[in-house]
Amino acid sequence: MTSVEAEDHAARGRRRRPRREVSAAVRQPDLGRVVSSLPAFELVDAEAIERIHQASLKVLAEIGLDFLHEDARTVLKAAGATLGPEPERVRFDPALVDHLMAQAPAQFPLLSHAADRCVGFGGREMVFAAVASAPNVSGLGAPRRRGNFKDFEDLVRLGHMLNAVHVFGGYPVEPVDIDPRTRHLDCLRTYLTLTDKPFHAYSLGRQRITDALEMVRLAHGLTPEGLAAAPRLFTIINTSSPLRLDGPMIEGLMEMARHRQIVVITPFTLAGAMAPATVPGALVLQNAEALAGMCLVQATQPGAPVMYGGFTSNVDMKSGAPAFGTPEYAQATLVGGQLARRYNIPFRSSNANACNTVDAQAAYESSTSVWAAALAGCHLMMHAAGWMEGGLTASFEKMVVDAEILSSMAAFLQPLKIDDETLALDAIAEVGPGGHFFGAAHTLARYETAFYAPILSDWRNFGAWTDAGAPDATQRAAAIARALVDAHQPPEVDAARLEALDAFIAKRREEGGAPPL
Amino acid sequence: MTSVEAEDHAARGRRRRPRREVSAAVRQPDLGRVVSSLPAFELVDAEAIERIHQASLKVLAEIGLDFLHEDARTVLKAAGATLGPEPERVRFDPALVDHLMAQAPAQFPLLSHAADRCVGFGGREMVFAAVASAPNVSGLGAPRRRGNFKDFEDLVRLGHMLNAVHVFGGYPVEPVDIDPRTRHLDCLRTYLTLTDKPFHAYSLGRQRITDALEMVRLAHGLTPEGLAAAPRLFTIINTSSPLRLDGPMIEGLMEMARHRQIVVITPFTLAGAMAPATVPGALVLQNAEALAGMCLVQATQPGAPVMYGGFTSNVDMKSGAPAFGTPEYAQATLVGGQLARRYNIPFRSSNANACNTVDAQAAYESSTSVWAAALAGCHLMMHAAGWMEGGLTASFEKMVVDAEILSSMAAFLQPLKIDDETLALDAIAEVGPGGHFFGAAHTLARYETAFYAPILSDWRNFGAWTDAGAPDATQRAAAIARALVDAHQPPEVDAARLEALDAFIAKRREEGGAPPL
Repeated sequence: MTSVEAEDHAARGRRRRPRREVSAAVRQPDLGRVVSSLPAFELVDAEAIERIHQASLKVLAEIGLDFLHEDARTVLKAAGATLGPEPERVRFDPALVDHLMAQAPAQFPLLSHAADRCVGFGGREMVFAAVASAPNVSGLGAPRRRGNFKDFEDLVRLGHMLNAVHVFGGYPVEPVDIDPRTRHLDCLRTYLTLTDKPFHAYSLGRQRITDALEMVRLAHGLTPEGLAAAPRLFTIINTSSPLRLDGPMIEGLMEMARHRQIVVITPFTLAGAMAPATVPGALVLQNAEALAGMCLVQATQPGAPVMYGGFTSNVDMKSGAPAFGTPEYAQATLVGGQLARRYNIPFRSSNANACNTVDAQAAYESSTSVWAAALAGCHLMMHAAGWMEGGLTASFEKMVVDAEILSSMAAFLQPLKIDDETLALDAIAEVGPGGHFFGAAHTLARYETAFYAPILSDWRNFGAWTDAGAPDATQRAAAIARALVDAHQPPEVDAARLEALDAFIAKRREEGGAPPL
Repeated sequence: MTSVEAEDHAARGRRRRPRREVSAAVRQPDLGRVVSSLPAFELVDAEAIERIHQASLKVLAEIGLDFLHEDARTVLKAAGATLGPEPERVRFDPALVDHLMAQAPAQFPLLSHAADRCVGFGGREMVFAAVASAPNVSGLGAPRRRGNFKDFEDLVRLGHMLNAVHVFGGYPVEPVDIDPRTRHLDCLRTYLTLTDKPFHAYSLGRQRITDALEMVRLAHGLTPEGLAAAPRLFTIINTSSPLRLDGPMIEGLMEMARHRQIVVITPFTLAGAMAPATVPGALVLQNAEALAGMCLVQATQPGAPVMYGGFTSNVDMKSGAPAFGTPEYAQATLVGGQLARRYNIPFRSSNANACNTVDAQAAYESSTSVWAAALAGCHLMMHAAGWMEGGLTASFEKMVVDAEILSSMAAFLQPLKIDDETLALDAIAEVGPGGHFFGAAHTLARYETAFYAPILSDWRNFGAWTDAGAPDATQRAAAIARALVDAHQPPEVDAARLEALDAFIAKRREEGGAPPL
C-alpha cells in the first residue's frame, strides 16, 4: 500500500465510524491526522547545512563507525564499505553514502488494522508518539515509583484515549515486575488488545523483533507478503555515541529492514558528553551516525523505510546533567530538520524536558521542544506526551498537559483561511463604531465552532476558579487522566485473530521467550 | 540622535562600566540588547496580507472611526480626512492613509540617561517590557491583593534587577492606595530613581503626559530641544474597539507626537467580543484601527515615531472569557508582524496568558505567546515578564519564570556560528568511537562558556532535588524574586537633576496634580 492509498483507506475509515475515545467527563479536540501548513523554517543557510554534511562525510570516510555485529560488517562490505584495520570499524566513501541514501523512500505509511488509526511519515504530516522507555512512573494518585505492568497498561489506556497521541513509541514505562524474557510478549499483546493505535517494537536482539512481526501479522490477519507490503511496526535505533552501533540494535535494525518495517536512527549525541561541546560539532556527529545507520538499512534492504532521528541536546557543563528544551536543543532540532530535508527523509524529533515535577519549568521546556519540532517540520514526535526528567519518568499528568500543548500546536498548524467570509467586512459594518460582536449574525453562526477549545486550560476568572478550589493545571490534569483511564474501552478485536495471537504467545512463552540482554 | 548613534552611545556605555544588577544569590544571563538572527516568518502569503490591508482600507473609507476629541478631528480634517455626517466620525481615503503612513519612521531609539540602558525599535532588535497596568499583585510572600505603592516599588526593583527586562511598559501594578491626581508624579519619580531603564507614560489626558515629559527632561538634564531630538518616553494607545478612540487617549497621543516621543497604537480586538469571531476578521479591524491611530500621529507631527500594536486574541465563546497564548492568538500575532512589515513600522506584541496561578498552564500559554512574538519579528514585547490572568494580576514569581523564558529565547535567537572551530572535527577524531568528550581539549576550552545557563530551571536529578525539599519552579521563582528585590540598589542619580525634579513635583502637587478621569 502506498502512502496515498493508506491515506484514502484512513479517510474512508474515519468517515465510516465515529472516534471511540469519547468520555463524557473530558472534552478534547479531534486532531485526526495532523498536517502542517507551515512553511519550512531554515534556521541556518544552505551553505551551513552543506558544511555539516561534508564534515560528517569526512567523519564517515576517515574515522568510520564501529559496528558491533558481524552481519552488519558483512552487508556493508558487500555494499562497498571498507572494513578495518580496527576490528569492528567500517568506513564509508562519500559516493557510497550518496548511493545508499538515494534508495531511501521520502514517504511511507504506518498502518493499523483500524483504518482511522493509520498515519503517514513524510510530506507535512506530523505524528505524535506517547512517552517511551521510562524506568519510573508518576501520577494517577501515587508518588513516583518503579515501572510496573499495571501502570504500563494504564498509560496505554490513557494514550489510547487521548486524541493527541497517534502512536506508541515504546513501552511508556518499563514493567520491571514481569519476566524480561517474555515481557515483550505481554507488552505487545497489551498494545494489540487495549488500543488499535500503531506501535513500536524494541530492537533488543533479533528474537524480540521476529516475535513482534509475527504478533502483528497474526493480530492484523495478514500473510507474510501482506506484512511486507506496508509498514505496521517501527523501531528506534539509538547509536552508542560516539560512533558505535551495538549488536542487539543491529540485529533488530536488520530484521526490521528485511521485513520492510520502519527503522528510525537516532544518535544520542549530548553535546559536552557523548558529543563535542558545540551544537555544530554535536550535529556533525549526529549526522554521521544517522547516515551510517540509514546506510546499513539500505544495504540490508534497498528501499526499506528509514527515518532521521534528531536528539542532540547538551549537558550542564557544571554538573554533567542533561538539559532539554534549551536554546541549544531548539537550534539542534531545527538544523536536524534541515539535514533530513536535504536527504529527503522523514525526521524524528521529541518533546523533551529535564524537569522533576509537572510545573512551569516542565511546561516551558516542553513548549520549546514542541515549537522547535513543529518548525523543524518533524514527522515523528517521540515522547510527545508524558515524558519527564530527561526520560526517567513517565507521568500521567504530564501526558494530559502535553495533550493540550500538542492539540494547541495542531490547531495552530492549520491554514488560516482568508476569504470574504472570514474577513467579515459585513459584520464590521453591521456592528459599527462602539458596538460589540456578541450578537452579530457572523458571531452567532460560529458560536459552536469558533476557536480552539482546550482540554486542560482553565479560563475562569479568579473568583470562580478560587470558589472551585483553585486547582492548578497539574491537579486538573490528574483528574482528567483518572477520568480517561476509567472511561477506557478496549477496541474490538477479531476473535479468530486473537486466538491465533494467544496461541503464538503461549508457544513462545513455553519456548522461554527471548534471552535477557 | 539617530538609532545608529544611539547604538554607538549604548555600546560605549556598556564597555565603560559593568552591569550593576549583580546579586550574589542569583546568576542570570546578561542578555544586553537582543538582536534576532531569525529569518522573518511568513505565516500567510503576500496575497493574504494584501487582502487584509485592502479590507481595512475599505473599513476606513466606508465606515470610518469615531474620534472622541475635537482636536483629532480638526487635525485629520486638515490632513485630508472626511468628517461626518455622524458627529465624531472620520473617514480616510486609501491615498491619505498611504501618504500619512509613508512619513512614519522604520526605526528609532528609546533613550535612557544611562547609556547601557538605551534600546532601539526597528530592524531585528527585540525589547522586553515588564508587566503593566495590572489591578492586582501576587507573590513575594503574600497572596493576591489589590495594587499598592509598596508592591509597585518592589516590582520596579525586580524589573530593574532582571536582565530580561529592558523597559517598563506602564505601572507593573496600579497603586490604588495613592491619590490618582498625583499618582503619576509619584510613580514616574519611582521610575526615575529606582531604575535607569526607559519607561512608558500613560495617555490619560494631556496633563499627565506634559508632566511626564517635563520630569524626564529634568531628570535627564535636557533642554526642550534635547528632549525632542530623540525619544525618551513611550505611550500605549488602546483603541476602544470597535472603531473608536477616546478623548484622554487622543490628548496623550497628540502631546507625545508633538514632542516626537513614541506612540504605540494597540487595538484591543478580542475576536468574538469587540471584534469579529474569526482571526482574519479581527485582524481587519485591528489593522484599520492601528492605521487610523498611526495616521493621527503623522497628521499631528509628520515623522513622529509610531509602532503597530498587535493584541488580537479571542474569547471563549461559551463563557466570554478572554483567552491568550492560544492557537488563534499565535496566528494573529504572526500576521500582525507581517502587516507591520508591510508598512515598515516596528511591531509591538505581548507575552500573554489567561492563567490564575503560576503553573504549567501559565508557562505553556506564555511560551506560545513568546514564540509567536519572536517569530513575528516583534520589536516591543509588552507584558514580557510578570503578566497573569489576562492582565488582572502582576506576579513576582511569574516575572522570574518569564525572565527564564525570555533569556532562553534571546539565546536561541543568536546566530549559530558554523566554522572549523565549532564543527569540531579534531575533537571527534581525538575521541573516536566509544569514547567520551568530557576531557577533550575542545570541551575543556569551553567549560566556562558553553551553553545557556538558566536562572530558574533545576536540572538536578530526582534524588538531589528531593533531598533539597523538592521545590517546584514557582517556589524557586519566589526565592529568586525575594533575593533580587532585597539586593536592589538604586542607580546613581545626579543630585542637581534630582533637586530640579523634586521641585517640579512639589509645585505640581501643590497645583493639585491632574484631574481624575
